[in-house]
Amino acid sequence: MTVGIVGLGLIGGSIGLALREPGRRIVGYDPNSASVKVAFDRGCIDAFAELDEVSKADIVFVAVPPRHVVEVLDSIREQKGPETVYTDCTSVKSEVVEWALAHNDPQFVMGHPMAGHERSGAAFASAWMFRGSKWIVSPLNSTAVASLKKVDGLITAMGATSVKMDAIVHDREIAIVSHLPHALAGVLVQLADNHQEVDVTGGSWRDLTRVGGADPVLWTQIFIANREEISKAIEETQAKLAELKTHLDANEYDGVWAFFAQARNAKERIS
Amino acid sequence: MTVGIVGLGLIGGSIGLALREPGRRIVGYDPNSASVKVAFDRGCIDAFAELDEVSKADIVFVAVPPRHVVEVLDSIREQKGPETVYTDCTSVKSEVVEWALAHNDPQFVMGHPMAGHERSGAAFASAWMFRGSKWIVSPLNSTAVASLKKVDGLITAMGATSVKMDAIVHDREIAIVSHLPHALAGVLVQLADNHQEVDVTGGSWRDLTRVGGADPVLWTQIFIANREEISKAIEETQAKLAELKTHLDANEYDGVWAFFAQARNAKERIS
Repeated sequence: MTVGIVGLGLIGGSIGLALREPGRRIVGYDPNSASVKVAFDRGCIDAFAELDEVSKADIVFVAVPPRHVVEVLDSIREQKGPETVYTDCTSVKSEVVEWALAHNDPQFVMGHPMAGHERSGAAFASAWMFRGSKWIVSPLNSTAVASLKKVDGLITAMGATSVKMDAIVHDREIAIVSHLPHALAGVLVQLADNHQEVDVTGGSWRDLTRVGGADPVLWTQIFIANREEISKAIEETQAKLAELKTHLDANEYDGVWAFFAQARNAKERIS
Repeated sequence: MTVGIVGLGLIGGSIGLALREPGRRIVGYDPNSASVKVAFDRGCIDAFAELDEVSKADIVFVAVPPRHVVEVLDSIREQKGPETVYTDCTSVKSEVVEWALAHNDPQFVMGHPMAGHERSGAAFASAWMFRGSKWIVSPLNSTAVASLKKVDGLITAMGATSVKMDAIVHDREIAIVSHLPHALAGVLVQLADNHQEVDVTGGSWRDLTRVGGADPVLWTQIFIANREEISKAIEETQAKLAELKTHLDANEYDGVWAFFAQARNAKERIS
């Protein structure tokens, strides 16, 4: 089996490391030659190939920044082999859904691995990146069952669990569980930077700000792509914070307690 | 040396475990006999003693919930030995400062270990809790140098680093780096609980919500005690979120990018 990877960053590189074993040939493409070199040196790919060749692999993972996904999908669709299945790794689906609905290609499967790292690039790629994590797959009516099976098989091979979810629901959920946390981490580090006299940070700080230094270009593209859902999530956050602030300003023990009690109940239900 | 501990919860229990070794006798008091039993069974204390006896130890750590600190300090001040040094572990200093300024006791030292855990109780205590972490110490003009030295010596013995900070500055800083993260984690889990269809959470979610299930009673007391500074921190958060939301609603790539770029710069400066 030949596996093609377009985009040799953190995710593309990790897919290569996770899938590279006897019987699978991994070919990768990235327009940036420095990225190709890092991916090759770290053993993420067996060989570099141009996009037209990568497009003819048995399966192609598209792991490029959000703003380039559609052009890459166009290119693969035109150059793919008759048996090629291709799947994206984009963390916001709205644009990809639009593209997929316009083409109804049975060989295309929408996907999104729920894994990552606050550092970017194949230098930080890991064969274990996807182990134990969820990989969301959003088939359309036009998606062939055989295509879905091929993608699911490789997701399992990487140690992840395939979770089926409607692409629009995906964008709403992800705004809350992934994008909003990045916004809040960004706010926290900015506030601390204005304030902090000495380093007095503890464990909760370290956890909440780990992703505060995430790649600005990647995350701007993600936020712009999912701006409507994230805007709603921010609005809900604002409302919750305003409620808590009202209780604090009025020195209302019971109101503050209700906030934390509700949080603990929620935490117990969802994790 | 005899070490007294008042309040045998997570922090009190961990102090006992961290300091218990030949040459030190650890005596502990807690009004709740179930807490005493857990602390004793886990080896946090050599013996239980009533508050008047614990108050006569060479050094006394006060690790009780915020709303009980002042009454315990009153009681120790009345019953302490001539050489006793006593220190609190309270995460909000405003009330304690007021008490300390009213009494000007050279034997009292204000302190706050920057360590903890999202679970409470001596059942989760650990001898390693304070290793590598900061322990803020806020001496007043009235504090005796000998008292400060005794406290610093034991902080070092527990593997922590003593950091001197003005108590009022402490409350402002801690509102940002510890209390606000708990508020944001609480908001996140509540929003997700309203929304989530299936479990699609990734690493950033796990990190940002770890403290989302923190003890409501303890955290309500902390928030009420530091309500003015936390209210200001929430206000600043609201302003940052509103700014980000404006850029998203206007589909302004540059504004969103500036938010993440500022966050990354801040993150690099402070960690």
